Amino acid sequence: MTSKTPSESRTTMTDMVLPSETNALQNLFGGELLARMDRAASIAAGRHSRRITVTASVNHVAFNLAVPVGSVVTVEAAVSRAYNTSMEVYIDVWIEDRYNGKRTKANEAIYTFVAVDETGKPTEVPPIEPETALEKERYAGALRRKQLSLVLAGKMKPNDATELKALFTQ
Amino acid sequence: MTSKTPSESRTTMTDMVLPSETNALQNLFGGELLARMDRAASIAAGRHSRRITVTASVNHVAFNLAVPVGSVVTVEAAVSRAYNTSMEVYIDVWIEDRYNGKRTKANEAIYTFVAVDETGKPTEVPPIEPETALEKERYAGALRRKQLSLVLAGKMKPNDATELKALFTQ
Amino acid sequence: MTSKTPSESRTTMTDMVLPSETNALQNLFGGELLARMDRAASIAAGRHSRRITVTASVNHVAFNLAVPVGSVVTVEAAVSRAYNTSMEVYIDVWIEDRYNGKRTKANEAIYTFVAVDETGKPTEVPPIEPETALEKERYAGALRRKQLSLVLAGKMKPNDATELKALFTQ
Amino acid sequence: MTSKTPSESRTTMTDMVLPSETNALQNLFGGELLARMDRAASIAAGRHSRRITVTASVNHVAFNLAVPVGSVVTVEAAVSRAYNTSMEVYIDVWIEDRYNGKRTKANEAIYTFVAVDETGKPTEVPPIEPETALEKERYAGALRRKQLSLVLAGKMKPNDATELKALFTQ
Amino acid sequence: MTSKTPSESRTTMTDMVLPSETNALQNLFGGELLARMDRAASIAAGRHSRRITVTASVNHVAFNLAVPVGSVVTVEAAVSRAYNTSMEVYIDVWIEDRYNGKRTKANEAIYTFVAVDETGKPTEVPPIEPETALEKERYAGALRRKQLSLVLAGKMKPNDATELKALFTQ
Amino acid sequence: MTSKTPSESRTTMTDMVLPSETNALQNLFGGELLARMDRAASIAAGRHSRRITVTASVNHVAFNLAVPVGSVVTVEAAVSRAYNTSMEVYIDVWIEDRYNGKRTKANEAIYTFVAVDETGKPTEVPPIEPETALEKERYAGALRRKQLSLVLAGKMKPNDATELKALFTQ
Repeated sequence: MTSKTPSESRTTMTDMVLPSETNALQNLFGGELLARMDRAASIAAGRHSRRITVTASVNHVAFNLAVPVGSVVTVEAAVSRAYNTSMEVYIDVWIEDRYNGKRTKANEAIYTFVAVDETGKPTEVPPIEPETALEKERYAGALRRKQLSLVLAGKMKPNDATELKALFTQ
Repeated sequence: MTSKTPSESRTTMTDMVLPSETNALQNLFGGELLARMDRAASIAAGRHSRRITVTASVNHVAFNLAVPVGSVVTVEAAVSRAYNTSMEVYIDVWIEDRYNGKRTKANEAIYTFVAVDETGKPTEVPPIEPETALEKERYAGALRRKQLSLVLAGKMKPNDATELKALFTQ
Repeated sequence: MTSKTPSESRTTMTDMVLPSETNALQNLFGGELLARMDRAASIAAGRHSRRITVTASVNHVAFNLAVPVGSVVTVEAAVSRAYNTSMEVYIDVWIEDRYNGKRTKANEAIYTFVAVDETGKPTEVPPIEPETALEKERYAGALRRKQLSLVLAGKMKPNDATELKALFTQ
Repeated sequence: MTSKTPSESRTTMTDMVLPSETNALQNLFGGELLARMDRAASIAAGRHSRRITVTASVNHVAFNLAVPVGSVVTVEAAVSRAYNTSMEVYIDVWIEDRYNGKRTKANEAIYTFVAVDETGKPTEVPPIEPETALEKERYAGALRRKQLSLVLAGKMKPNDATELKALFTQ
Repeated sequence: MTSKTPSESRTTMTDMVLPSETNALQNLFGGELLARMDRAASIAAGRHSRRITVTASVNHVAFNLAVPVGSVVTVEAAVSRAYNTSMEVYIDVWIEDRYNGKRTKANEAIYTFVAVDETGKPTEVPPIEPETALEKERYAGALRRKQLSLVLAGKMKPNDATELKALFTQ
Repeated sequence: MTSKTPSESRTTMTDMVLPSETNALQNLFGGELLARMDRAASIAAGRHSRRITVTASVNHVAFNLAVPVGSVVTVEAAVSRAYNTSMEVYIDVWIEDRYNGKRTKANEAIYTFVAVDETGKPTEVPPIEPETALEKERYAGALRRKQLSLVLAGKMKPNDATELKALFTQ
């Protein structure tokens, strides 16, 4: 399989925040943003793998900034690292001030998707080659995040998570 | 403030999986489940704090089991630990076979909510007292998860995350 | 077929009232509540019968209490009586004050469902055995309600509705 | 207040049945039809009263005919009788065969609405004068249905429901 | 094929404007109205052809009147001219003042639909015979609009659009 | 006011086609696409004007290509010409084959928006300076389209539409 670059899977989903998606403070529900990010990330994973893709896991997500009703929200997703049948997708979320156009980073999130065939069986995906400095940094960090994910799911012993362990034992 | 128990905030949301919520394999979108869990967890946090609550973060979530269209899904959320103004909410997700009624654990997830007043300012929440063995276990694990969350957000140095560090240095 | 109890089909659906579900007074549309009750009752009927179930009729429903936007609404449904292929489902609706947690009964409703096979043909359902005093009272009242339903649909003569007639001729 | 006729409030709502509104047999959910009827009936009550209207009760509704996905459904609602501040609305539902255009009566339902001012306080509505034979028949039956509604809600003793009682004691 | 009249396909869709369908000024989104008109027009085209119908084009649509949240909107669609496999559908939109009942024309729009079989292949539709003066006027104007449509799509040279050209060369 | 370029308002909205948005042939409803294009175009007009914007009109739209369920659809909108208080927005729609990634142009559409203040009064927008050859071509064609729009709305006599008339009298 020929390798691809993150920019080949980059997916931009710009849309408004409607009143039906907001909480008592008139801000976007966290859950709605999680769902939008899932749709954008799923398209990015599909562009990389050219397969049906299913959400395998969501990394830690912090909601730093409230997103008020009427905002324009841009969700940008791109595959950051590809494994055998799974892909890490890195998602950046910006909101835009309606009046002065100022664009503010509202969120980052990381989802993992698995490519499957029509019966739901995992299938191979192309390798990835990061190009920019940011893409390379995200590619490098992915392995540490994968170990964290396996440790948290009880599928890897903390002691075997060498990349992750280094963080705490330096 | 009088302390409360996890069972006082326990919230049960049982509903069907509709065709409009499913992907190409006719299974529930990961993003839809994330949104349902957010709604249930937000109600649980509101029951504990009696305040408006906003999603602060989502812990690592793994999707182990596909949820087919037509399934009955039960999302059960309860506050597992309360801090000064924030609450960790533990969520269990079950699916039920329509024909034999067999109930299978499909997911666990952990969200953090902050209680706020009408202007969005964080406000104090009651302490919590776990009762059952499972509640006590989740209460104890919460501190480690909080440290992980702070480390991942770059707000705590790995070396200061004593609870978490112990995991990797034993 | 082994008989079941009402508690085996009890279904709890707790959710918020979103702005898109409210009328000009910012209260939940009657029609939205009817739809939520139908979904919860359909799951309860499915849990009793382990079959596909379709709504056969809705008894008289009175809306005594307005349900304001932002409320937490709990719909609780359980099969109250089983006939040959149909089931009466009794539904209780509570709303909860966000700030003091006070739970108020907002509604009661009674739906009837029929269990069907994949072709839509009615199929037999298990008998039911009420356990609590309330379950026994609802079980006893079901026959009178069934007669009323048949009379209203023109499928039974008022004079043959002995249970119902007694109400008016004592 | 000048009286109005049922035809002045007649409301026609024709729409399709979408896949997201159907159950496991690919037929319209009962709850969705209840919600559509509520919207149409609410508009009819608003046309009669020129006020905000809220659903007060739903009479017994029987679902005689399954409504398959893709059907064209016509909901027709008109005020059948006006009281002091409330109105009975009679609803007829037809489905239409896509290929031969045959129109079949699928349902009848009766909802009651109350006219309210901006604070939710009941306000007076105009009297009604039925014109056609069908409108007169529905107008006449309304009183008996109102008594039944009051008896079922425990607000009238069966013995005082003279119109209704006559049905069982002839 | 027996010809039909416009009144045989006339479709009335009355519904409210919900908060989730409105923009920052609390008026109905243009796009929501375009979608409602498409559904009503598609039903009208289906009533004329008794076939599956797909939107082929939308003529110029002007939004002259804002439609505020809570309005009652009536969309009325009828086939205005039938060609070999396509139909022009003329749509009138009215809004109604909740308090005085005054009905105001808010929009006119013209959509074209093609009748297709189950494989998507265009199939013949019945001829149409306009009856009223308005129907005849719309029937007559349809040919000019069709030429405009073909010119705009680059499928007809302006010089061959004789009906349309006359407009500019008189 | 400083002039802007079309690329400053360019808005990309990539999303999937869900089952609830499709017709009997499992293709995206024309009306749904019209609504998505309206949302994307409205954001583009907001980016150019930094004002609330409302849809004023939709030019002729042809649906050349069916968009099957599961497709990835990209709607790209940018202001093509600015007048005093209104803006023409040009919209391109592509669909993408899930398996080979082939991107096909499915549609072009042109909407006009007006910038308004909080009371709905039209307000001035910045001038625009097209940069690329395609932007210049669209800018030039806008005047002809505006005249067509005015003629069709009966607000300009065909004889005064000099740009448009030239098309038919060469």
